[in-house]
Amino acid sequence: MYTDAYFMNEALKQAKIAFKENEIPVGAVVVCRNKVIARAYNQTERLTDVTAHAEMLAITSAANALGAKYLTECKLYVTLEPCNMCAGALFWSQIGEIHFGATDPKRGYSNNPVNLLHPKTKVFKGVMAQEAKDLLDLFFKKLRN
Amino acid sequence: MYTDAYFMNEALKQAKIAFKENEIPVGAVVVCRNKVIARAYNQTERLTDVTAHAEMLAITSAANALGAKYLTECKLYVTLEPCNMCAGALFWSQIGEIHFGATDPKRGYSNNPVNLLHPKTKVFKGVMAQEAKDLLDLFFKKLRN
Repeated sequence: MYTDAYFMNEALKQAKIAFKENEIPVGAVVVCRNKVIARAYNQTERLTDVTAHAEMLAITSAANALGAKYLTECKLYVTLEPCNMCAGALFWSQIGEIHFGATDPKRGYSNNPVNLLHPKTKVFKGVMAQEAKDLLDLFFKKLRN
Repeated sequence: MYTDAYFMNEALKQAKIAFKENEIPVGAVVVCRNKVIARAYNQTERLTDVTAHAEMLAITSAANALGAKYLTECKLYVTLEPCNMCAGALFWSQIGEIHFGATDPKRGYSNNPVNLLHPKTKVFKGVMAQEAKDLLDLFFKKLRN
């Protein structure tokens, strides 16, 4: 059995790929029965597409791997708190668990007074949050210079 | 100059394609400088992907047509009120205007106490709402039988 930290580190590896490709460094993996079935990182710049967040690509990829629309038996590990769009997508996917690292005080879904996620989805936060935040801070510092 | 009804009818044509393909019949077009630059319909079943709503596919397609991420000069015409996911995506796109037909009392973004759209986005509703609703009602009636 792998730990949450193991899977979050896999998500962090994806975020690091995004960093190298000059994308805002957010990475995600989807885990089903203790196995990574999808990996993705933010590709909004490469794809010229605001919808190409790591979570969105991971959901699409996971559904493709399973051959099923719903991810009720799956867990998403993502380095940054999902935005409203991704929370809305996660709602539709009925994903079992969401584990996110850094919080997003500005654009995170949890800034809303209502829960955008599916009522059955369990949320865990703070796993490797500092590593995820450090990578984001470094990215934006580099961008400003 | 084409009218809003003309463009909404183009969106409705997309919804009718969805209907024929046994998808929940929602269609969308993106208009830029009075020209349709993207057309899409809901394909969640065909693509086995909960993120494949008409609006999401239309945003991606429009950005592709423009070669630009932001749709500030564009208008979305969609037959049904966008859900939270699509509202979140429309926020990121900074789309200029949204025109929707039927309201979605259960899953529409406007059920939220906060505005999920970009503050600069103008919203118009009710254009050909009855036609859009009739098509949806017919679809769900067919599904139950």
